[in-house]
Amino acid sequence: MTEGDWPGTAIGQTTAESITVRGSDLADELMGRVTFTELTFLLIGGARPTEAQTRLLDAVLVSLADHGLTPTVLAARLTYTGAPESLQGAVAAGLLGAGSVFLGVVEDTARFLREVLDEAGPEPSPQRLADAAGLAVDARIAAGARIPGLGHPVHRVEDPRTARMYRIADETGLLGLNLQALRAVSAAHRERTGRALPINGAGVAGAALADLGFPAEIVRGFALLARTAGLVAHLAEEMERPLGMPLFREVEGRTAPGQPPP
Amino acid sequence: MTEGDWPGTAIGQTTAESITVRGSDLADELMGRVTFTELTFLLIGGARPTEAQTRLLDAVLVSLADHGLTPTVLAARLTYTGAPESLQGAVAAGLLGAGSVFLGVVEDTARFLREVLDEAGPEPSPQRLADAAGLAVDARIAAGARIPGLGHPVHRVEDPRTARMYRIADETGLLGLNLQALRAVSAAHRERTGRALPINGAGVAGAALADLGFPAEIVRGFALLARTAGLVAHLAEEMERPLGMPLFREVEGRTAPGQPPP
Amino acid sequence: MTEGDWPGTAIGQTTAESITVRGSDLADELMGRVTFTELTFLLIGGARPTEAQTRLLDAVLVSLADHGLTPTVLAARLTYTGAPESLQGAVAAGLLGAGSVFLGVVEDTARFLREVLDEAGPEPSPQRLADAAGLAVDARIAAGARIPGLGHPVHRVEDPRTARMYRIADETGLLGLNLQALRAVSAAHRERTGRALPINGAGVAGAALADLGFPAEIVRGFALLARTAGLVAHLAEEMERPLGMPLFREVEGRTAPGQPPP
Amino acid sequence: MTEGDWPGTAIGQTTAESITVRGSDLADELMGRVTFTELTFLLIGGARPTEAQTRLLDAVLVSLADHGLTPTVLAARLTYTGAPESLQGAVAAGLLGAGSVFLGVVEDTARFLREVLDEAGPEPSPQRLADAAGLAVDARIAAGARIPGLGHPVHRVEDPRTARMYRIADETGLLGLNLQALRAVSAAHRERTGRALPINGAGVAGAALADLGFPAEIVRGFALLARTAGLVAHLAEEMERPLGMPLFREVEGRTAPGQPPP
Repeated sequence: MTEGDWPGTAIGQTTAESITVRGSDLADELMGRVTFTELTFLLIGGARPTEAQTRLLDAVLVSLADHGLTPTVLAARLTYTGAPESLQGAVAAGLLGAGSVFLGVVEDTARFLREVLDEAGPEPSPQRLADAAGLAVDARIAAGARIPGLGHPVHRVEDPRTARMYRIADETGLLGLNLQALRAVSAAHRERTGRALPINGAGVAGAALADLGFPAEIVRGFALLARTAGLVAHLAEEMERPLGMPLFREVEGRTAPGQPPP
Repeated sequence: MTEGDWPGTAIGQTTAESITVRGSDLADELMGRVTFTELTFLLIGGARPTEAQTRLLDAVLVSLADHGLTPTVLAARLTYTGAPESLQGAVAAGLLGAGSVFLGVVEDTARFLREVLDEAGPEPSPQRLADAAGLAVDARIAAGARIPGLGHPVHRVEDPRTARMYRIADETGLLGLNLQALRAVSAAHRERTGRALPINGAGVAGAALADLGFPAEIVRGFALLARTAGLVAHLAEEMERPLGMPLFREVEGRTAPGQPPP
Repeated sequence: MTEGDWPGTAIGQTTAESITVRGSDLADELMGRVTFTELTFLLIGGARPTEAQTRLLDAVLVSLADHGLTPTVLAARLTYTGAPESLQGAVAAGLLGAGSVFLGVVEDTARFLREVLDEAGPEPSPQRLADAAGLAVDARIAAGARIPGLGHPVHRVEDPRTARMYRIADETGLLGLNLQALRAVSAAHRERTGRALPINGAGVAGAALADLGFPAEIVRGFALLARTAGLVAHLAEEMERPLGMPLFREVEGRTAPGQPPP
Repeated sequence: MTEGDWPGTAIGQTTAESITVRGSDLADELMGRVTFTELTFLLIGGARPTEAQTRLLDAVLVSLADHGLTPTVLAARLTYTGAPESLQGAVAAGLLGAGSVFLGVVEDTARFLREVLDEAGPEPSPQRLADAAGLAVDARIAAGARIPGLGHPVHRVEDPRTARMYRIADETGLLGLNLQALRAVSAAHRERTGRALPINGAGVAGAALADLGFPAEIVRGFALLARTAGLVAHLAEEMERPLGMPLFREVEGRTAPGQPPP
């Protein structure tokens, strides 16, 4: 490759005198003038958000930041137990569990809703949206697959984040086609199965991020960002009140079935 | 360990009906009411920030989010080249390079300023602060060690983030002892060596985070959070305009000295 | 969960006096008596390998350990640039790129051959194997998908590892159904497309591991193990003769198209 | 940087026809002819090992591969719980905990013994070695620091790996200065404190690796390699008999002190 072909980056540039992010001077035009959420939108989306977009994105990030002592938080805290000198290693270990089972739902939902909306066509009527949702749900049921964004192992009746997110999207005028399609999916599923699975918090976050204009492929990145705040909080707590070592000691002391006591 | 000894977590709790973060109901009291920066402060610090604290923390996070095609960004993008199915792996790889050479300076500076302030004693006069800074700088120079927070390989005369951060801290009434001590350190160093090394952006961020009340041990976590936003942006760009594969191909085609051409 | 339900582990146990791995005393029965390759087979497979199995597994691990300055090696070395204090972080970063594009082929091939063999039925004749391979290749071609284990961006005519692995498998009497099926797949592909894509080294490794009795789901783990040796070697070299920092500096100095010079 | 300055790598090279590792043809001269342990020695050390060196290195790798349900193994298994699609992520998470508290001892011991041997001078007599060890132990005790390589939380009287490793080193004629110095350190510590702390398995591994000629800076890499085999074994078990999810569920159901039941 010759230097002329080098793709470079449109995100930012640094010279001896200035740092530029998406064309704005970091020190003069961004620091003290935009929130971290606005900067995140600008960095990833390439343009500054409106006030409404910022409010919805803040709600999404707030909704995903922490969910208690999840497997990924336990992994991060146990990693800190062995390598307290490397905070970045413990955070990285925590992020590595943000895969298909938990946070991947954010992305899966956004991809699924894109399918629904592709089927529904441009500017779909509620009826077309319902039909497209019905087709997509039928296909999933026929394939024995789960519907992305529906159901939660703990919040069995209702995920408290869902109604709230719809209200905020409504208030900000950003209750777009993806959030509408997700409701249509939920209704179609209930109609077909007789079971009322709640729209979960990861699913509604994925739909809201898609309505904010982010491609399905990158929405998991927002979940990773949000979760990083939670992981850092858990690691700060681990420094003061460790549970990694006690958890390990407890497990170490157990006798598995069919094994002699240690 | 019996269950009664289990330390648990004070960060949050999830039940079938609600999610609680630091005692506030996530859906009703946090989503749509606090920004992601406010939530981060609450999660890690345990209390809600004032408006001034939020503004300073936003400035810190904005200042650290992106610095162009750094080694950690290249590592993340090259990881994505091999494992595009695992966005979390690429982000984690990017964070793993946030160690002692680059982002570790945030933590090193906060630790160093704590030493200076311990030496200066409670409510120190400007003179005591200058003396304590002088002692600490002397000790570092005698040990042949670098002064954390001073100097930058690119921003040799002035780091554009520094003056801006001091101005924001001043405006918000949060120009505290750590930021003052860092200036005293810079002055002491110039006095002793005749060289005017600029206070760098990582150093001023570490001092500001310490003035916000965060222990030195956790401040690197804020840098990791900020950098995650930058990494996600670079990975979004990598999806559209890859540079990992071209960079690899280019390196692969090179002949190292003393090696036969491939 | 009560303690009685705890699944525990059958891999190993530690008491004050002894360490047991898969039922053997680590100090007395394993150290000095088995090679690391034999221990790896025992750890993952649950039983000690025969001499022939050890020889084939050694060949597989040797074949996968290093492939020069790959994207994952570059990622590891660039991570070391930023965090030289955390060797484990640099190795982890290197492993994170061992995904679907490169090393994932080992697993993909093993999964694909399992499909072929399921179709061929127990103790298949060469003709049944050829038919089953033909069906599987047809299905992939119809779906516009690549055939796992065939083709290599660099070794376009022949991957030097392939013929050698078949010879070793033959010599050890372990040229089993998976390796045979992979040849049948290659022949079927050539017949249908007229193109002679070589069986690649990752594919032949996946087939050999499957013939050694390992489930497709875990064979990528052997590739990760082999690659760890290569990564550690590259990091040892990075300590002596760094290329992470020069590579970063070089990239930093480039001007991307349409951007002003820094 | 111009291409002429590019450091390249001396580890290996790939062309369309051949793969070369440390100057040997991978297919013809290494596969089927060297064990994975021999290749590892060659990759990292740059030269082929003798039979004796291979036997000692095998013993070291075997001794470090698995230690039961350690914190790092738990972290890897909990990461797999959330991201089963990314085996490399779970292995990486497991390696990230191989830091200062556990596996770092391998490196710390090698560094410490280098200090002792630097003090003792070239070809030291047993008395000089004892004196140098005594000085180093005194310095550590005076600083309130632990002696690297001594003591183990579980193996309080004797680590079963230690005597065995010394025997193998003796049999192979490789009981070098580092292993001798470690014994001198242990004796000096017992003499000064009256407490007989056992030489631990990580310490003896670090000393043996140093006697094999590897610099202290890289010996942790061998521990990471060995541990990768153990991690892959645990992840294979996790696929069949998961304990990540049950462990999480159990923790989730607990009430921490002072918190209301969920």
